[in-house]
Amino acid sequence: MDGRRISRRAFLAGSTGFALGMAVGSMGLLAGCMKPEQKKQSALAREPWEYQKLSPNKAARLAYEAYFDNYCTYSVLKGIVEQLRDRVGEPWVSFPMKAFAQFHGGVAGWGTVCGTLIGASIPIGLVTWEPEADVYFETPELMTSDIMRWYANTKLPQFKPEKPLRTEIKASTVAGTPLCHISVNRWMKAEGDVGFFSDYRVERCARLAADVAAKTVEVLNTWRDGNWNYIMMPPYMIYETTCQENCRDCHSDSVPKVPTKGNP
Amino acid sequence: MDGRRISRRAFLAGSTGFALGMAVGSMGLLAGCMKPEQKKQSALAREPWEYQKLSPNKAARLAYEAYFDNYCTYSVLKGIVEQLRDRVGEPWVSFPMKAFAQFHGGVAGWGTVCGTLIGASIPIGLVTWEPEADVYFETPELMTSDIMRWYANTKLPQFKPEKPLRTEIKASTVAGTPLCHISVNRWMKAEGDVGFFSDYRVERCARLAADVAAKTVEVLNTWRDGNWNYIMMPPYMIYETTCQENCRDCHSDSVPKVPTKGNP
Repeated sequence: MDGRRISRRAFLAGSTGFALGMAVGSMGLLAGCMKPEQKKQSALAREPWEYQKLSPNKAARLAYEAYFDNYCTYSVLKGIVEQLRDRVGEPWVSFPMKAFAQFHGGVAGWGTVCGTLIGASIPIGLVTWEPEADVYFETPELMTSDIMRWYANTKLPQFKPEKPLRTEIKASTVAGTPLCHISVNRWMKAEGDVGFFSDYRVERCARLAADVAAKTVEVLNTWRDGNWNYIMMPPYMIYETTCQENCRDCHSDSVPKVPTKGNP
Repeated sequence: MDGRRISRRAFLAGSTGFALGMAVGSMGLLAGCMKPEQKKQSALAREPWEYQKLSPNKAARLAYEAYFDNYCTYSVLKGIVEQLRDRVGEPWVSFPMKAFAQFHGGVAGWGTVCGTLIGASIPIGLVTWEPEADVYFETPELMTSDIMRWYANTKLPQFKPEKPLRTEIKASTVAGTPLCHISVNRWMKAEGDVGFFSDYRVERCARLAADVAAKTVEVLNTWRDGNWNYIMMPPYMIYETTCQENCRDCHSDSVPKVPTKGNP
């Protein structure tokens, strides 16, 4: 793994190397040994992107502040990619973080997977994907799954800003699931039935984005040191269907009625 | 919008222009009028990526075939990005499709948002994001939301391959939701209680990926012609919380018990 990273760095040394890479690609010098499909790809599409160890605390701070610009997915990307721009340079300098901001609120506000987890999984994929490996049991899947399980089973948010950018909040809750809808509504209830568009909920999601950014950097740092291994298989391999491990949140007779409480 | 696209095309005309763009960026010629944060970004991170009208049928065929390599998210990316590599070139040639494959199965097999919808929303974001706009009500969010609502309310799959790559299937179902877990299990029941790892389910998801790729291309083509407008607001703006619009699938007393049926 290190060998690949070094050869890649030698090949793409900053923006000059990047330009050289493009030129070499278009001159077809590498094309002889490629499959037809690979001829349509530049080096950037054929190899993982370089990762250097980052500061989890800085990731948290950057993510927290970025939330108030472009929300959850963008926040976590910012905590990680912004640091990689400084530490590595290209291709992170060319990565358009805001072009992924629509994944906020569980994808366009649909309350599916928490947008922070998409913001975590994108750099995980770019850094750890293996061109020849199967997707099942590949590092991006296993690492993403572990972070989702940590998210579902951890009291969040934990991050405390030096000075809250929106408001002070009290509650932290275990979501039981990576689903935005359940995660956010469970927290809103614990905070005292606050509304989705309240300052409290906004502050909570900003802090939670900080937690996910820091956690992702911790995991990627461990991976960079060669010490990472996955903790548990993704749910679809355990339960023989894709699912969220909080079965009784839907499959039980005690699911709450649809809440009607409005926003402040 | 066209003005921006044309100036962008003139600036980044193929891989030579791409290299030039990088060189100009590193020479700092553009840096004088940028905010500090923007100095760390290349042109590719500051502007939407070029889109040219594509064939929905070809998108469907490419997506269907790609499913058997790297599953749902990758499939839809392939149906769109592969064509943009031919029609536009960079930066699509440098876009590593497989680095997003871990979003399969509702994100790492967690059954959250259907992976095809992430594969649809990524190119939507890259093509239609607006650097200065707010994320709320921006095109990427509204377009993604409309496709999610179409997915939730349409009998799928509709795509019929000339020759099935895995097996023949009969059922098509309305998911009622963009959630992979409900979507896939509802179809599996309709097909005759087939298992998740069965050839039937694999064939169904491959065909559904074809449908989502074709639909996304149709929508982006309309947008490219300047005729696109969103159909309906995302759910979080309607219901004042992030949610999936299939409330009674969880919030009712008639939710099915956790299924125990195994796979074949």
